[in-house]
Amino acid sequence: MIDRARLGEFLEGPKFSNFIMGVIVVNAITLGLETSKTAVSYAGGLISLIDHICLGIFVIELVAKLFAFRLSFFRKGWNIFDFIIVGIALAPGTEGLSVLRALRILRVLRVISVAPSLRRVVEGFVTALPGMGSVFVLMAMIFYIGAVMATKLFGPSFPEWFGTLGLSGYSLFQIMTLESWSMGIVRPVMKEFPYAWMFFVPFIMVTTFAVVNLLVGLIVNSMQDAHSEESNAATDEYRDLVMKRLDQIEAKLDKRDS
Amino acid sequence: MIDRARLGEFLEGPKFSNFIMGVIVVNAITLGLETSKTAVSYAGGLISLIDHICLGIFVIELVAKLFAFRLSFFRKGWNIFDFIIVGIALAPGTEGLSVLRALRILRVLRVISVAPSLRRVVEGFVTALPGMGSVFVLMAMIFYIGAVMATKLFGPSFPEWFGTLGLSGYSLFQIMTLESWSMGIVRPVMKEFPYAWMFFVPFIMVTTFAVVNLLVGLIVNSMQDAHSEESNAATDEYRDLVMKRLDQIEAKLDKRDS
Amino acid sequence: MIDRARLGEFLEGPKFSNFIMGVIVVNAITLGLETSKTAVSYAGGLISLIDHICLGIFVIELVAKLFAFRLSFFRKGWNIFDFIIVGIALAPGTEGLSVLRALRILRVLRVISVAPSLRRVVEGFVTALPGMGSVFVLMAMIFYIGAVMATKLFGPSFPEWFGTLGLSGYSLFQIMTLESWSMGIVRPVMKEFPYAWMFFVPFIMVTTFAVVNLLVGLIVNSMQDAHSEESNAATDEYRDLVMKRLDQIEAKLDKRDS
Amino acid sequence: MIDRARLGEFLEGPKFSNFIMGVIVVNAITLGLETSKTAVSYAGGLISLIDHICLGIFVIELVAKLFAFRLSFFRKGWNIFDFIIVGIALAPGTEGLSVLRALRILRVLRVISVAPSLRRVVEGFVTALPGMGSVFVLMAMIFYIGAVMATKLFGPSFPEWFGTLGLSGYSLFQIMTLESWSMGIVRPVMKEFPYAWMFFVPFIMVTTFAVVNLLVGLIVNSMQDAHSEESNAATDEYRDLVMKRLDQIEAKLDKRDS
Repeated sequence: MIDRARLGEFLEGPKFSNFIMGVIVVNAITLGLETSKTAVSYAGGLISLIDHICLGIFVIELVAKLFAFRLSFFRKGWNIFDFIIVGIALAPGTEGLSVLRALRILRVLRVISVAPSLRRVVEGFVTALPGMGSVFVLMAMIFYIGAVMATKLFGPSFPEWFGTLGLSGYSLFQIMTLESWSMGIVRPVMKEFPYAWMFFVPFIMVTTFAVVNLLVGLIVNSMQDAHSEESNAATDEYRDLVMKRLDQIEAKLDKRDS
Repeated sequence: MIDRARLGEFLEGPKFSNFIMGVIVVNAITLGLETSKTAVSYAGGLISLIDHICLGIFVIELVAKLFAFRLSFFRKGWNIFDFIIVGIALAPGTEGLSVLRALRILRVLRVISVAPSLRRVVEGFVTALPGMGSVFVLMAMIFYIGAVMATKLFGPSFPEWFGTLGLSGYSLFQIMTLESWSMGIVRPVMKEFPYAWMFFVPFIMVTTFAVVNLLVGLIVNSMQDAHSEESNAATDEYRDLVMKRLDQIEAKLDKRDS
Repeated sequence: MIDRARLGEFLEGPKFSNFIMGVIVVNAITLGLETSKTAVSYAGGLISLIDHICLGIFVIELVAKLFAFRLSFFRKGWNIFDFIIVGIALAPGTEGLSVLRALRILRVLRVISVAPSLRRVVEGFVTALPGMGSVFVLMAMIFYIGAVMATKLFGPSFPEWFGTLGLSGYSLFQIMTLESWSMGIVRPVMKEFPYAWMFFVPFIMVTTFAVVNLLVGLIVNSMQDAHSEESNAATDEYRDLVMKRLDQIEAKLDKRDS
Repeated sequence: MIDRARLGEFLEGPKFSNFIMGVIVVNAITLGLETSKTAVSYAGGLISLIDHICLGIFVIELVAKLFAFRLSFFRKGWNIFDFIIVGIALAPGTEGLSVLRALRILRVLRVISVAPSLRRVVEGFVTALPGMGSVFVLMAMIFYIGAVMATKLFGPSFPEWFGTLGLSGYSLFQIMTLESWSMGIVRPVMKEFPYAWMFFVPFIMVTTFAVVNLLVGLIVNSMQDAHSEESNAATDEYRDLVMKRLDQIEAKLDKRDS
């Protein structure tokens, strides 16, 4: 019988991680080669074979981890991440739908869950998100309001850009990124609605200001974390020392008094 | 007779806030559905009815608040905000002008005044504005000067872009956002005025530098607020403690001397 | 005879500053009205008259200041700034060349030298510049190198964009601002020189990285200034106090020893 | 016989540095003049002569440094930098290939290795890079994944933009810089694949978020360096002083006790 604890240790150890990392890199290369017609015509079978072997290894890895950790496997976010990514490759219809076939390259993302330094960066990104929640809600509101207004005002005349809520939302996203907002969208709209700038210019100002505030919030948060971590360690140590010294002095004074 | 104080408490309590929040969300959905032709053709009457009911609730809420708080209602900025937004919906001609109809979606902004976390974000934005006042005045001056110069220099040849002060101002705003500034505007202008870049390139540099300075100012302000709030609390406490300890030591020395 | 010292005080006092500010605003409005054909056709003579009166006031102000402060007038940078701006309006040919006429609107910039809050912002901008000197020299080098390379490589095939050093410099500035860099310039160039991206993509990366570094430098400098100004005042005071207290304690210990 | 140590001192002294700086500037001007047809037709021979003399001086400088420092010459990164740049000019075929001829202007970069202030800026850039290593790896992964997906999904229909991995990578870089991403690329693609925005909009969000994080990381790092350098010097000094004073007080208390 297999010892589950030892299997778990092995599966999370550096040797197995490096092996999986290697498999991911090989798989990334074969998935990349699949996009080249010449590579497929020369070695399509081999590429497909390697791809299937890699997938097999990932499946075996997952099954082994599920066996070793049972349901506690799903307690780690990164395990769920791996599970979903491998699951996409196994979904029925994988062979048929080109979208699902294209999604197989997402397997390369498994590098993140295997390499600790990348994992830390992504975790840093993710932990930064909740602090920006309120600004995201505000942005969503601004986009919803903007999309409804743009659809009602400009939809009938410019159905390609503002025909439905979805099209308006996409167009407003484009305008927020400042891509061709004036020459491409607003100047043509202003030909028919001369006061359209009174909608779009404030929209640009408000959304870019909100984005800038997101950025500022991110910087301030990172700074505070970095600042309190680093300088406070030294400061705390010093302050403790001062307090201890004052204690000693007072104790000596007390001793003599008694 | 109704007790005004109790009514006021109820109107500002969490239960009523949540109810109003729900009404706003329902109204947001119906206003969104109004943009969809299929939704209107199937359930136009129902959507319109719900919209009127929501508006009715908002009006009753406002009237109740006005009754409960009387003129002190207008002392809170957020109440005035709500008052104007609901007022837009009641303005005569609402049914006729498409612009006023479109403005009704601004009611969704009432979510901000109801949800404390959003309110705090917006208040943060607003309090950041006065500190940037001088830079805004400078920007306005640069735009006015730029618009007058562009109108005088390029207006006669390019009336579509620089024909009037207003058109020049809009074109300069577009140029500041860097949208199609060169391929769309400056290269055509340079065909006729080869030295036009001597106006536009410095304009871009000055305005982007001013925008960058706005950003830097925002970051520095937020940092200072965050910094002084957080780290100074601990520091002040420590400093008070050191002072108290030094007092004690000195007191003991004094006591023995006497 | 006029008392020079009192005249100087009057000229730099708040009353006279406010008067000059008013003249500048009036002049700004008339210069703006000159761009409107209807305003000129209705009241062209009046506008021109007011413009001349404003200019006259500025000239009298300058002459009075020169009389009051003599050569020490030129020791203040802002005085030189005013002198040049008014001088532009008096330059011969002002009436003829449209460029010089357009430059008259620069008089509005005098608001900066008169309003202390604006002056401080601009002085903040200007003091930030020397710290960025090295990065500017680097940017100039990168542009010079890029312009020479682009002219040699792409000049013969694309004379409109890269025909001379000047045209290349302008095109590279456009590319640095990311305006139409790919669809407008690099894709057409790549049709003829498939490896052109090996020049342009690194150019974009290096210049945007340099710009980002300028920004970072600005932020860090402003932070440090703000930080050291604010928090250090309190810290220095506290540290002095601790030292004084320790002196007292030691003095008391010494006194008893003797 | 020549004294190697003294030669080395001379070669790294300020006089020789200034001389080399002058040669670089002269060479920069001649290389710039070579792009002008009129300058070449009037004084092509002279320009070419000066260019060869400058190159000769650089070669002699390198040979002298190699003689003076032998293999320890290659221990300094900047020496290797100079060596490669001069080597490019001497590579066979320099006269033939226009690309190698164009690369000669890179000699101007030698100014960086000669001028200490520029060297410091570039060293600052370079030292900032390793800290961003993980984010760069992530960006490379996102681009690889994005390129594979775009090639598989859109390659057959839009071979010009997404035909191969390389073309997709270039197009995605363009999209990341937000240049014509919507009007130029995504709207045409959406004509055929209506859900293409589900690929491109998240791609834009993820890459710009990663770029913003790079920026934030840079700012935070620079801040910490600046902060710890500056304020900690004064703090350390103060803390040492406090400790010394407490030592003295305790020593005095101890002395009397004994």
